[in-house]
Order: sequence, then structure tokens, then C-alpha cells
Amino acid sequence: MDELKVSFLPANEDVYVLPGTSVLEAAERAGILIENPCASTGTCGKCKVKIISGHTKQEPSQHLSAAETEEGCCLACQTQVLDDCVVEVPRESLASGVRQILSTGDKSEFDLSPAIAKKFFALSPPSREDFVSDLDRLRHVLGEYEIPYPLLKSLPEFLRANSWQGTASIASGRIVSIEAGDTRDEMFGIAIDLGTTSIVGALFSLTDGEEMAVSAVMNPQTNYGADVISRINLIREDAKYLAKLHDTCIAAINSIIASLVEKTGADTAKIYRIAIAGNSTMQEILMGIDPSALGELPFVQAFTESQTVLAGELGIDINPLAEILIFSQVGGFVGGDTVAAMATTTIDERDEPTLIIDIGTNGEIVLANEGSLFAASAAAGPALEGAKISQGMRAADGAIEKIVFEDDQLVFNVIGNTQPRGICGSALIDVVAELLRYGILSEAGRMLSRGNVQDSCPAHLSERIVDCEEGLAFEIASAEESAGGHPIRLTQKDVSELQLAVGAIRAGTQILLARCEIDASQLGSILMAGAFGNYIRIKNACRIGLIPPLPKAKIHFIGNAALYGAKKCLLVQESRDYIDRLAEKTVHVDLSMDPSFQEHFATAMFFPE
Amino acid sequence: MDELKVSFLPANEDVYVLPGTSVLEAAERAGILIENPCASTGTCGKCKVKIISGHTKQEPSQHLSAAETEEGCCLACQTQVLDDCVVEVPRESLASGVRQILSTGDKSEFDLSPAIAKKFFALSPPSREDFVSDLDRLRHVLGEYEIPYPLLKSLPEFLRANSWQGTASIASGRIVSIEAGDTRDEMFGIAIDLGTTSIVGALFSLTDGEEMAVSAVMNPQTNYGADVISRINLIREDAKYLAKLHDTCIAAINSIIASLVEKTGADTAKIYRIAIAGNSTMQEILMGIDPSALGELPFVQAFTESQTVLAGELGIDINPLAEILIFSQVGGFVGGDTVAAMATTTIDERDEPTLIIDIGTNGEIVLANEGSLFAASAAAGPALEGAKISQGMRAADGAIEKIVFEDDQLVFNVIGNTQPRGICGSALIDVVAELLRYGILSEAGRMLSRGNVQDSCPAHLSERIVDCEEGLAFEIASAEESAGGHPIRLTQKDVSELQLAVGAIRAGTQILLARCEIDASQLGSILMAGAFGNYIRIKNACRIGLIPPLPKAKIHFIGNAALYGAKKCLLVQESRDYIDRLAEKTVHVDLSMDPSFQEHFATAMFFPE
Repeated sequence: MDELKVSFLPANEDVYVLPGTSVLEAAERAGILIENPCASTGTCGKCKVKIISGHTKQEPSQHLSAAETEEGCCLACQTQVLDDCVVEVPRESLASGVRQILSTGDKSEFDLSPAIAKKFFALSPPSREDFVSDLDRLRHVLGEYEIPYPLLKSLPEFLRANSWQGTASIASGRIVSIEAGDTRDEMFGIAIDLGTTSIVGALFSLTDGEEMAVSAVMNPQTNYGADVISRINLIREDAKYLAKLHDTCIAAINSIIASLVEKTGADTAKIYRIAIAGNSTMQEILMGIDPSALGELPFVQAFTESQTVLAGELGIDINPLAEILIFSQVGGFVGGDTVAAMATTTIDERDEPTLIIDIGTNGEIVLANEGSLFAASAAAGPALEGAKISQGMRAADGAIEKIVFEDDQLVFNVIGNTQPRGICGSALIDVVAELLRYGILSEAGRMLSRGNVQDSCPAHLSERIVDCEEGLAFEIASAEESAGGHPIRLTQKDVSELQLAVGAIRAGTQILLARCEIDASQLGSILMAGAFGNYIRIKNACRIGLIPPLPKAKIHFIGNAALYGAKKCLLVQESRDYIDRLAEKTVHVDLSMDPSFQEHFATAMFFPE
Repeated sequence: MDELKVSFLPANEDVYVLPGTSVLEAAERAGILIENPCASTGTCGKCKVKIISGHTKQEPSQHLSAAETEEGCCLACQTQVLDDCVVEVPRESLASGVRQILSTGDKSEFDLSPAIAKKFFALSPPSREDFVSDLDRLRHVLGEYEIPYPLLKSLPEFLRANSWQGTASIASGRIVSIEAGDTRDEMFGIAIDLGTTSIVGALFSLTDGEEMAVSAVMNPQTNYGADVISRINLIREDAKYLAKLHDTCIAAINSIIASLVEKTGADTAKIYRIAIAGNSTMQEILMGIDPSALGELPFVQAFTESQTVLAGELGIDINPLAEILIFSQVGGFVGGDTVAAMATTTIDERDEPTLIIDIGTNGEIVLANEGSLFAASAAAGPALEGAKISQGMRAADGAIEKIVFEDDQLVFNVIGNTQPRGICGSALIDVVAELLRYGILSEAGRMLSRGNVQDSCPAHLSERIVDCEEGLAFEIASAEESAGGHPIRLTQKDVSELQLAVGAIRAGTQILLARCEIDASQLGSILMAGAFGNYIRIKNACRIGLIPPLPKAKIHFIGNAALYGAKKCLLVQESRDYIDRLAEKTVHVDLSMDPSFQEHFATAMFFPE
């Protein structure tokens, strides 16, 4: 089935979905989170959007006036896309809790207060009556700022060559640059999400907070290992890999900067600050710190508080005296990206118990309850990223990313709209959830043979159960349908791998809930962080037990919280104290040391009823 | 006449003097300042010393007991050396105002409180119950110090390789080093006098304040110009010389460090601080700052407050994270060496008006009066260093450094005890003073012809007046006596040059006195700083008007005050605030802008009656 392109304005995000997908779901997939307090029942009317072009199927609603309908307005949860569409999302429809995330090109989200300020100065030249030193002359006008040695060194020459005028940029009481002329309107900063798999950077004008460009690259460290554990082990085996991985990381960041500068024409010397959030391994390698201690019990980090390093010290191609802010960390594998997610959602200020889940090879879980914060990292393994799954693959071209069982057919969506080559994590969740729904998998995760399925199971599904070398398997795509010429199947072993991954995250969640002596049903909301979270179907994730079964209205995607948190730290100077407070306040729960973990894990191996 | 070697204990300083010189004068020449409140009249008995060996001629004194005389004790002002001598100076005889200067090998002068502290730490290793980050683990034991990035970077590896033990050195809230084992007893610092002509460094143990070694080199910048003006002009002509002069300076400092390390066996990585005092040009070139602004009116310095630069940034071969402290400056040519002299003498705390004079190409003058501080730099020119004088030379081997007219002969002393090649500044002062005393020079500085001198002038002196090409001249040494085979003479032009030099310093002194509305006679003391000050005869300097005519008891040599001030800043951490306060508080009087300067200068061209 052909996928459709849905473009969202003003964020300018595109997404490809199956026909019949709701605009609300498409928007979530695009990282654009729309108000949905009624859980898509169409009763609240808060998810109004405007269809600019494209064919859709809409349910009528009392919340829409005739004029609105005439203009193309509709409720996102009650509208299905039937064709390529362009959809405009008005500001008031954005989910308030995470509205900020989506503010690409939007200048007004924050009370902008970057740690950098620029001041123009015009000094009176020395005279026979006024012969104070150059530095004092500057300070009398600018203020009593600390001046780094390289700037002091060139100060006398600069002042005389530039008629005693110029512009200084100042960060936390320290002069970062002194430039000729009045350059107050050129002041840039970069927020970076330093991920294991990909690195994303966004360039901001710090004069008005405008996001001017975004650029992303694959993390070239993947050449040395797909996940953090394999990279840590490489360094543990041979210390030379620390320098290699570090250099690779810096080169990748520099390539992002080069791309951002090319897109915007910004002057690299006028980029005065970078805020970076990543997991603990990525942050330590970035800093050239040996992460070996993260590779052995009890998983010790090098630092907790946020750190700053000068760009020149790291070899990052911006103003060499600019500070690179690296996020605070909680402990073990609960790193800067998790702190960024906490800061993004101001989780410590929420009235009801709130859970953040960031699904990945390490699943990070944070639970906030009555002012207390607990965080854990669950070693889910790479199954959810498609590894260890017989036909598994990353979410790349050719990957089946969504599977829906209908009464008369099995529908799947392939990334890149090509013949399928395998399935990625989100489709793995879909197919297991659907198999449970149709009774083809038991609660224990055992696949039933064709003869043992219930009569209610449609024949077109039971016929897909095959008995192959590896035992029973469920055929998703036939050899003819697939790109590789061999069938794409889910094996019994694949199911077991998923059970292990889900079980780890579920047991972690259970332990945090137990720490707070609350039950999942008492949660006010669940916030799904990270790229993977964006692409899963909540219903199916609940069905297999990956997230607690809460009403859909209480479950929200918060998109790339690491990038958002980094952006917040770049644009709002008080945020640094906030992320340090969050990291200090959060209790790191080491699951491997929790006596009840094995018990919870064993229970979590059973799918929910 | 053969000169005699006098060695002083415990300072271990040697000096060469003419027979008949008093032990007190010899000691002053050696930079060892002995109590002398009675102005060498023998009445106070405070200048007791002990002759260990050598022949002397002593006046009897009621201040000496029979037992003391038996032991070799005598009054330094009443004892003349007749032979090579070894003299021990007891602590109580040292001049109290400047006693500190002489404390080579003495640990008790200061309440030692260096800016550096070392702490040994033994951390409990991480465990399943205690898995805080490495940095937090260290800070919980050491204290909440800032950690520089290079140390954080290697912290995890260091702690695990060294069983979680080590020693940290800490300066102003910042960790400077982390070392294996317990190294608390190895903590070194260096004080440096960065002079135009020579650079002197002293290595101290910061654990007990002991001065372990001293080393000096000629400032190799002299290859680019003998004085600061010629070096500034070189840089003004071609900026490449800034780098050359800077590199030369760093290399010289590194050679001193190498020599200090060789003498003591100290580990360069365990030298954690250097304090440097020099004139403004030397300090700015040291920092790589273009000093061109010091070469044009109104003589503007780059900075006033003391500065710190990391050793690694300057390329100085000690611990790269160690701070190099560079002295605060007052303004123009009143630089760090003058601030050091003020700090050395705690001039702001004196009850009576006090004058500091540092004689050189630029003569620095400081006047303290009732809590106010005024400083000026007088452009004396190089005459006092032997330049522009027909037979002038530096105080090097072959230079006549002392001249005494006696009734029956003219006596001079030659450095290195060889035939004379010329005369240096101290002898220039001597000969002019003596010519004034014997009426061969008029107050206006005019030399009288042989026929015009008074009858009281001994014939052996009037016969030395010759009429040569340059006009009248006074012959100090005949062609036969001198090494060059030509007579060494003082010409009328030489006298004029000296008048210009003396006039500048004298006019500066007058202007500062006028600022305070006091007369020279109200001064409580005059402190002579700098190397040159050590070698002049006070009586003669007063005679020609170089220093105001105060009783000898009120005039003191304070020796190498720049080195002493640097030492104080190294060993007593509060000194940094003190030198900054002094520099801020001192009013810089620019003589060239003082409307009364020309008048004072014209008057000062006449020698005092």
C-alpha cells in the first residue's frame, strides 16, 4: 500500500503514513504534539487544525463553526488522511506541557535570557588628563568582567586599531570576545543532541531566540560499535580507541557546525556557546574521558554536575573562548539526555505522579512523585532497535515500521515506500501486540500452531503461521513481496528477545513505582522521550507491557527532549542551575542491585492479560 | 690599590671593597642592611657584628663587653677592614624595616600562607552501595574545588590506577594537580625579579618557606636594546619583534627554572606558582602584550590589576596548570617592580612621610604621606648607567666604581681588580661630588680651569684639570694607568649629562613633595631601591642632589625589592590583594604633564650649595 506524505506547518515537518491514519497520529509521528485531553473521542474539540491541501475524510463536529469548516478547519483526531496533505497546526492546538519543543522558528516560547550578552563600547581615547590602563578604560565602560589572557594580550592593539570602539560578548562575568564595530545583532549559539546513533544540532540567534537551522549526522562512532556497551568495551580492550572515538565525535560535531554555518551564513567566530546533552557514555567520550568505569559494576560516571570546557580545548570550530556546556548526569547510564528530558518536562513541578520513559538499548525511566525523583536505566538490549531479531533491522529504508491486522488483511508500511527488507522495532511491537490480540501468541509469549488458534482468528492470519527450521514463525511478508526474495517472518525466538527487552523496562518501571509506593494507575501522565518513542503505537506498546496501560490521553510523546533541553540551557541561563539541581536531586536506582529486580523481571516476562 | 674581599654570614654574600672601608658600608654594598640609627657615630651600639676571620681596625666602644670583644664582636660602623674578612651578622643587628629582605635560608620571616595547599586523599572505592561519580567522590573528601578540564579528563583513569589515593594541590579554590602517592612535602614556588638588564629567580619550598636556591641570568633582550625605550621602539617599527622579545624572555625564565631545578632537585611538575615583578614594559612583553602604547604620550599601560596566566599558556616549564602571577602596575613606567618596592616596605603603613627612589634609566619615585601615595617615573636617561658619558661604561669588570679624593691622593676602586677601562655610574656620582667639594666644579656644573680653582684645592687635584679637544676635563686615570692606553677623563659634557639625569629625578622628587605640601626635611626616611641604589655613596648622592640631603640614618638601601615583593606574594597569599590595593591607591603623577616640571627641572640643573 502506498504511503502518503503529510507536511505540517509552520514547523515544516514531513512524515509518511498509511492512508486512513489520523492527522493527530501523523502529527505525533512528525514530533508535533497536539492537545488531546479527550483521548481522540472528538469530544473536547481542542485539536483543531487546518487542511491547506490534500484529500481527507472528516467526522462532523459541534466544535467547528460553519465558517471554520469552510476554511478547512477540522479536528485532528477525527480526520483521516487519504492523500498527500499539507496541514497547518495553530499554536493554541499544541499540547501545552510540551508546546515549547515544537517552536522551530518561533521566537516567543521562552523568556529569552541566554548566558551570553553583547555590549557595544565607545571609549574616550587616553589623553594627558586621562591615562588609565587599557583594561581599566574598557572595564569602566563595560563593567568589571574577567578577561581571558588571549583577549588581554591583544587588547592594546585592538583598541588603537579600531578607534577605541568595538563589541564585547560576555558570559557569566567573563569576556568571551572583543570584535571590531557594532556586532550586537550577531550572536549565535548551538544546541546539540549527542545521541548514540545520531547527532542533531540546531543553530539559534541568541538575540531573539530564533532557531535558524537544524542539521543532523549519523554518529560516526557507529563504525566502532552500534551501542554504547560495544564502544566502552572497545576502549577497555585498547585505550587508543578513546582518542579515536573522541576525535570522531568532535569531527562529527564540527561537520554539523559547518552545515549550520553554510545554511545560515553565521560567522563561526560569533558562535559563543554550545549546550550538549547526551547519554553518559557519549558525554564522557566527547570530553575525552575514559568511560571504562561505565562498563563494569557499579557503573560509575566521571562527574555529576554539568561541566564547561572551552571550544578551543576541545577543538570545536567556533569561537575558541566559547564555553561548551555539557549536561549534568544522574548516575550510571542515566545521563545528560535523561536530565534534558526531565528539564524539558519540568517533571519536578508536576502535581501528579509522572513517568518518563526513553526507550532504547538502555531504557531510561524517571518517576516523579510528590517532589521526589527516581531514575533507573534498564538494559533492554538492542531488540527494540531491530538487532537480535531474525529479520530485524534499523528504522531505515526498507524497514517495515508499522503493521496493522485487519479482519481481511494484514497491512504494513515500509520506510522509503519500497519493497520490505526487514522489520524495525516499532513494527516488532505492532506485530506482537496484534498476535496477542488475535490469540496467536499466549500470555507467556508462546506461538500457537495453525491448528491451535481460536476459531475467531481470521484464516488469512492463521495461514501465516508456518513451521520452519527455527520452529513456529509468523509470516509478515512472503518471499515474493520482499526485497530480498525470502519471506519476512517473526520467529518464536524473536518473541523471546522482545520479552527480554520489554521485561527489563517493565521491571524497572515496577521497581520505581514500588519505591514511591504507588500503582501505575495513579500516574497522572507518561511521557515518551527519545526518537524511538515517537514511532511506536501507544496502544500496542501498552498491549505488550512496554508502558503501563493508561488511558491514551495520559500518554504523550515529548519528541527529542535531549535537543530541547540543550536548547533551553542555551536560551535560558538559569537552566544550568536547574539541570544541576535535577541531577543532584534525582535518586539513581541501580536495578541490578535491587533485590526485587529478578522477581519483577520474571513476572514482566509474561505479557499483560 | 688592591681591593679586599669581605664575606658575610649567614647570608653568604661576598663584596669587594677598598681597605679602610667600614664593615657597615661593606655590608650595605653586599645588600645586607645593618641597624644604624646613630648614623655611624658609634653611639647607639646597635650594629654589632662578629669578625670570624681577617684583620680589622676597631674603635673601642662602651657597648661591647670584654667577653664580646674577646669573641670578636665589634660595631660595624666603627670597624674598618684591612684584609680579606669573614663577618657574621647576628639577626638582631639587621635593619628592622627591611630585615625580611635578607632572609635567605631563613624560614621564619613570614607567617607563611602560600596560595597553594596540598591535601592527601584516600577515597573509599565505589561499591554496590556507594556509586557516586568520581568527581563527587573526590570532592566529598577534598572539598568543593573547581577542577580544570585536563584533570577531570584523566580523573577516572588516575583514581583506578592509584588505588583511589593521591595528593591534590589547590590554589584559590581550584585544583592545580593530582599526583600519585603522598607528595605533601614537595610543594615549590618561584619568585622572579624581571629586570631590564637581568632576571633573578628564587625557588622556595612552599611547605616551610625556605629559599632553596637563587639563580640569575642577563636578560637576553639586551641584544635587542639596552633599555626599555629602545625595545619598545623596535616593536613599534616592526611587530615581529614583539614575538621575538617575548620568546626570548620566556626562554630566559625557563633557563632560570632549569638552573633552580638542577641546584635543588625539585620536580618541575611540583612547582605550582610563580610570582613575577618587573617594570611595565618587561611585564607586558612577558605576557606577549604589545607595549607600543608605552612608547608614546600619554604612556598607557595595558592593565593595572595583577594578572594571572597559566604556565602552559605562556610556555613556562613548570606544572602547566600553575598560575603565573604578574604584578599590578600603577601607570606609565611605574610598574610591578615599584609596586613590589612599596609592598616590601609596607610604605602605606608608615607614620612619617617616606620616599622610595629607584634609580635607573627611568627613575621611579614614590612618596607616601598621611595615607596618600604618589608615584612618578622620571626619564633620567642612561647617564647613570654609564651611557652618554665619554669614558662611561656599565658596572662590569674594568669599571671604576668608586672614587675618593683624599688630601694627598685620588683613590679609585675597579671592578674585577684590574686596570680601569672606564667609569660606571656610582663613580660618576663620586667624582662629581668630590669635584664640587673641592670647588673644581661650580654649582652650575661649570668646570674651573687649573688657574681658577681656589687655593685650598690640593695641587695633585688641580693638576688633573686638562684642556682637551672637548674643552676642560678632569683626568681620573692617566693613559699609563688605564687598560686602554688612553686617559680616563670626566669632560664638561659628562657633567652636563649627569646634571640632566640628576635634574630629572630631583625635579620628580620635588613635584611629589609639592603635591603633598611637604618639604624634604620632613621626610622620615628615604628608601633606595634597585640594584644601582646599592652601589652609590649616600653622602655623594646627596651632595649632587640625586637624593634629598637627609641625615644618613634616615636613608636606607632596600636592595632587590622587586624580588622580595615577588617572594612575599608567593609566600603570603593575602599579598596579592595588597599589591592590587597599593596599585589602585597610588596616584600616578605624569611629570611630563605637570605644569611646574620645567621650572623644577631648570632649578634642579643647579647642584645644591
